[in-house]
Amino acid sequence: MIIQKSTQPRIGSFDPESYSFGDHFIDHMIVCEYQDGKWGEVKLMPYGPLSFSPANMAFNYGQACFEGMKAYKDKDGEVYLFRPEKNFERINKSAARLAMPEIPKEVFIDGLKALVDVDRAWIPYGEGKSLYIRPLIFATEEALKARVSHKYMFAIVASPAKSYYTAPVSVKISDYYSRAASGGVGFAKAAGNYAASFYPTKLANQEGYEQVIWTDDTTHENFEESGTMNVFVRIGDTIYTPKTSEKILDGVTRDSFINLAKRRGIEVVIGDVKVKDVVDAYRNETLKEVWGVGTAVVTSVFEAIGYKDEKLILPKLEFEDSYALTLQRDLVAIQTNQAEDPFGWRVKVERHVLEGA
Amino acid sequence: MIIQKSTQPRIGSFDPESYSFGDHFIDHMIVCEYQDGKWGEVKLMPYGPLSFSPANMAFNYGQACFEGMKAYKDKDGEVYLFRPEKNFERINKSAARLAMPEIPKEVFIDGLKALVDVDRAWIPYGEGKSLYIRPLIFATEEALKARVSHKYMFAIVASPAKSYYTAPVSVKISDYYSRAASGGVGFAKAAGNYAASFYPTKLANQEGYEQVIWTDDTTHENFEESGTMNVFVRIGDTIYTPKTSEKILDGVTRDSFINLAKRRGIEVVIGDVKVKDVVDAYRNETLKEVWGVGTAVVTSVFEAIGYKDEKLILPKLEFEDSYALTLQRDLVAIQTNQAEDPFGWRVKVERHVLEGA
Ligand SMILES: Cc1ncc(COP(=O)(O)O)c(C=O)c1O
Ligand SMILES: Cc1ncc(COP(=O)(O)O)c(C=O)c1O
Repeated sequence: MIIQKSTQPRIGSFDPESYSFGDHFIDHMIVCEYQDGKWGEVKLMPYGPLSFSPANMAFNYGQACFEGMKAYKDKDGEVYLFRPEKNFERINKSAARLAMPEIPKEVFIDGLKALVDVDRAWIPYGEGKSLYIRPLIFATEEALKARVSHKYMFAIVASPAKSYYTAPVSVKISDYYSRAASGGVGFAKAAGNYAASFYPTKLANQEGYEQVIWTDDTTHENFEESGTMNVFVRIGDTIYTPKTSEKILDGVTRDSFINLAKRRGIEVVIGDVKVKDVVDAYRNETLKEVWGVGTAVVTSVFEAIGYKDEKLILPKLEFEDSYALTLQRDLVAIQTNQAEDPFGWRVKVERHVLEGA
Repeated sequence: MIIQKSTQPRIGSFDPESYSFGDHFIDHMIVCEYQDGKWGEVKLMPYGPLSFSPANMAFNYGQACFEGMKAYKDKDGEVYLFRPEKNFERINKSAARLAMPEIPKEVFIDGLKALVDVDRAWIPYGEGKSLYIRPLIFATEEALKARVSHKYMFAIVASPAKSYYTAPVSVKISDYYSRAASGGVGFAKAAGNYAASFYPTKLANQEGYEQVIWTDDTTHENFEESGTMNVFVRIGDTIYTPKTSEKILDGVTRDSFINLAKRRGIEVVIGDVKVKDVVDAYRNETLKEVWGVGTAVVTSVFEAIGYKDEKLILPKLEFEDSYALTLQRDLVAIQTNQAEDPFGWRVKVERHVLEGA
């Protein structure tokens, strides 16, 4: 690993009590470049801009995919990653679907640990706080041919994240727009999937909804995801969530929720989640909760669902009665080292990773 | 317009007899930045890299769309654009679907003309030669939130293009992968659409096909496009092409071919083009030609079509018998000022555009 520490660290001016998420970056970043058919040496360097031409292939043909993950600080100042292997595997699935080279495991994992360790002072401690980490791969060749790039960059940047406890939101079931085609790239964390979702989301916002519940593009009869989250529905005391497929991102939080629900003896059904069944359950008052899950907010509880011209108002459950909130608490306790970790999900970031490097 | 001419022009070392397309760039580029809700002043500046962080939103969320157009030099050294208004309108349709700000017409058209004029020496003259021009818009905000960017760059870069007379190719009808979802972004020249097409194309290449004929993602029974081109099928003496839709790019070449075919009295049917009908026509020997059209190559004639495990070999027509080649010649003659322009498609690029600027 090439190590180039910042000579002008900004950590001194970082106020862990007051910052905004996503546009404050930690002092360093990881960069690794791919050319001539192979990845070069991993470099830890000061966070900042690099040189790219507007003819850069990522800007033109969208070969770019990313991951989103977090590091958590416990009361003793120890730092943990959560299931980083899942993100490693997923970025390579995304890369393969976009005809991009896969990242070697040591580049991803060692880069991640080195970065988090060197900038561990940037990780805020406290309820819901964490470091949001963004590994990404993007094309860097300068060329105007619509073909696979021959050059890529893998980078990891990170930003201190705030409490994810968010107010309940209203979501709109999509009956026209969709985020994924059959035989498409919906399962990949492809950059283009997000751009494609912004306009339908804007339209939903204009109708008073925070997010879109994506449905299949052919019939709009089946739930796929909600916003940039996987979705869970509770009818009676059973939890339903769509089966992952080529159209649905295989979320780490989703998988963790399923495991945590089973541990609590809650019945989880993984399969088609039909709009009709959800609406029917609403009508007969067995629809208890609908929520989204993802790394960023862990859980986003839905208070209302827009279905055609109707707004289905969901019951307000007490914390103890809510599966969404109970499972969220279970998960956060493991992530932040406040509970046993029977699944082996936590990965401690050792101190001074770089000294041996 | 801010004008910053190159102090180290590379034109002296450009050999118009020998160059490769797409990675040689003309001396200048156009750049215009959007922030605080508005586009700034257009800048003509030396082509080259600019500063972008890996946290740039275009790399992460794929808000990026582009155009592809050409400038042609005639025997007197005069330079013409072809239907530039179409590209202007289309980039704004793409931008709107990706929730990006639309470009004002003067930014697009004036920037284009200034750039082509200042670097007119880079435009090669000769059969099939031209300047390939790439306007693009991409997000430039540095932030890790999956939301619309507040900053964008519009840029125009260009590269001398070679003869587009290409050998006939084999294409594979997709029966699994697809490029566009219903309610998706297929009609937009969204960067992510191209990245999504590379892997299926790679698989087709491995089977010996140059391109994929994209079909609808639900049934794979209808033709959509071929590679990055619109597609035409000739059965008997009638030409068929899919109707444009939210899943199909509204190509300038396609529209021009339709007009040119009608002018010649050829019957053109615009509507569903069913895989079954094409295969049936092949079996009863009425399938005469299948070809793709687009700015880059004008026409790409297909010599064989892969359908399931079969390879349908298309007849080899003489030039005079081929609608594909006849219409291509008609179009090129107009583009390069070798024929009358009854449609008013050519737009001359005046000399010394910048002197009045
Ligand atoms: C489209 C989409 N679905 C679901 C998720 C949830 O995945 P994870 O739990 O791994 O964060 C994400 C990412 O956060 C996403 O971008
Ligand atoms: C997907 C796709 N279809 C069709 C075309 C043809 O469009 P045009 O004739 O405007 O170049 C293009 C661009 O070249 C394209 O990218």
